[in-house]
Amino acid sequence: MPKVVRFHRTGDASVLQLDDLPRPEPGPGDVVIDVAAFGLNRAEIMFREGNYPQYAPELPSTIGYEAAGVVAAVGKDVASVAVGDKVSTVPSFKMGPYWTYGEVALVPEHAVAAYPDRLTPAEATAIWMPYMTVYGALIHQAKVSSGDHVVITAASSSVGVAAIQMVNAVGGITIATTRGANKRDFIRAQGADHVIVTDDENLADRILEITSGKGAEYVFDPVAGPQVAELARAIAYQGTVFVYGRLDPKPTPFPVNYGLSKGLTLKGYSLFEVINFPDIYKRGIAYVTEGLARGDFNPVVDCTFPLEQVADAHRHMESNTQTGKIVVVTSPS
Amino acid sequence: MPKVVRFHRTGDASVLQLDDLPRPEPGPGDVVIDVAAFGLNRAEIMFREGNYPQYAPELPSTIGYEAAGVVAAVGKDVASVAVGDKVSTVPSFKMGPYWTYGEVALVPEHAVAAYPDRLTPAEATAIWMPYMTVYGALIHQAKVSSGDHVVITAASSSVGVAAIQMVNAVGGITIATTRGANKRDFIRAQGADHVIVTDDENLADRILEITSGKGAEYVFDPVAGPQVAELARAIAYQGTVFVYGRLDPKPTPFPVNYGLSKGLTLKGYSLFEVINFPDIYKRGIAYVTEGLARGDFNPVVDCTFPLEQVADAHRHMESNTQTGKIVVVTSPS
Repeated sequence: MPKVVRFHRTGDASVLQLDDLPRPEPGPGDVVIDVAAFGLNRAEIMFREGNYPQYAPELPSTIGYEAAGVVAAVGKDVASVAVGDKVSTVPSFKMGPYWTYGEVALVPEHAVAAYPDRLTPAEATAIWMPYMTVYGALIHQAKVSSGDHVVITAASSSVGVAAIQMVNAVGGITIATTRGANKRDFIRAQGADHVIVTDDENLADRILEITSGKGAEYVFDPVAGPQVAELARAIAYQGTVFVYGRLDPKPTPFPVNYGLSKGLTLKGYSLFEVINFPDIYKRGIAYVTEGLARGDFNPVVDCTFPLEQVADAHRHMESNTQTGKIVVVTSPS
Repeated sequence: MPKVVRFHRTGDASVLQLDDLPRPEPGPGDVVIDVAAFGLNRAEIMFREGNYPQYAPELPSTIGYEAAGVVAAVGKDVASVAVGDKVSTVPSFKMGPYWTYGEVALVPEHAVAAYPDRLTPAEATAIWMPYMTVYGALIHQAKVSSGDHVVITAASSSVGVAAIQMVNAVGGITIATTRGANKRDFIRAQGADHVIVTDDENLADRILEITSGKGAEYVFDPVAGPQVAELARAIAYQGTVFVYGRLDPKPTPFPVNYGLSKGLTLKGYSLFEVINFPDIYKRGIAYVTEGLARGDFNPVVDCTFPLEQVADAHRHMESNTQTGKIVVVTSPS
């Protein structure tokens, strides 16, 4: 029986375990994938902890949004993919009924997409969450265009890297931030126009300096917390701060003074704002596929773990030392 | 010499004094108005206190954004108005160099607009700040349309009343809030579909009840402070809270959890987002003028004070007991 990662109670990384489960039978519209590699997201840490804002796990719960592999079986009415297709998954389903962590994955048909031959399976697990997340906020909603300054905080994450590449591709000016100097070279290598090391430099002062005092038109921030007030100080008139995570658990202020004087927008955002709208979702898939084909978008893998070390992989993500996607590779049982 | 209201130091209402000043000579593009009445805004309280987010007073400073009266003199190059025209002023200039509190007002030409004959001068001081403020946020930016639920907090203010009327005029559903039951009848008489008395009822629960659990698409809020978290609880998916004031000086949170799960937008807003953009400004003037002509928009005066009691008029505004615009009427010296 194939091994599938599950947790029987919420908690820290140690709750993740490998359960031997019967091969899933795909229901109508569902797809079973023999997984070559699966990628980790912070959403799964929150889900594992029982802190995911969108929904709670039903225990025992499977987990996982992203994987790459080969289609092993398809359910009734599945028309767009066939057994043997090389695919990766778009995180557009509910974890629990569906999952990607394991030797096999079960996902709905709409969540299955082809990926370019030039990518390894590990790289193919680093496409959809990062690039679709950025697509929804910065391309679809904000319509970032040439000359816009975009501050990308926690820029060494896979979403941060995708944001650098996607903003660069439309001619925007990327101001990437990271806490420690050790990630500076990595971020610059991803194409960031400016890198701010927040342990060493004043965030708002540097943004204002880079933008000649005008401030940045957009901020794309998974950190939240008190730093948002600093970002608001460095935002341009009628600028927008997208908050798409809360790495900092401390309360997040809405700085009313800058709000009123600058017409500041603070917008919570998640990938669900793409997934819940089939038309936007379809356009996102096409947009990202084209960027990958052109070579503008290049998913970055931090490192890979074997399946048995999935808990260590989660701990590595929690250490915040990674640059790019953390991937678990499987080998058939 | 005409009396003009000035303050020589920032502070409470008692700093307002009547100074006898020479009649102003209009510079190029400027207009002098013999004032029949001037209207009060919270912006002027903040300005008087030295807390106005947009700019600080240079002392001694004149004050005031809104007045109605008759054009007494025009400067070089003024073409759109002439001596003898009955006009009111649009708050689209810097207080200090320009003003409206006094027997005479000095304003730039673009800030002068005609008003319908059916309005008294006192009513004509209650047009532009309220209706243009609402226009910018709810009509121009949000594009509120038929069936949208709009929560209007502090609904008994002149801006609140304008919001009720303007949302009703486009077919939106108005949910007006007020702290005490004493203003309920007034607000209902302005056409609010629902009134929530927040001293007696749970704000979020009632909004969710009225919207059948879906939440309100928009909130239009001059209060800010901790109540914003309650409003976020009662907002619809991808809803927007406009914060256009800070009656509550306590810190305002950005509720990240609702932010992420609902894609919540919290937007600071001021009338400057209309004034700073000539095209939007022009469309706003036309939109409001049409609504006044149709009779959909009806400015409401709370009460009038004589010029000598301008400080009392400010104190009355600070008491938060008013319903509609507080107006000071002058008599020629």
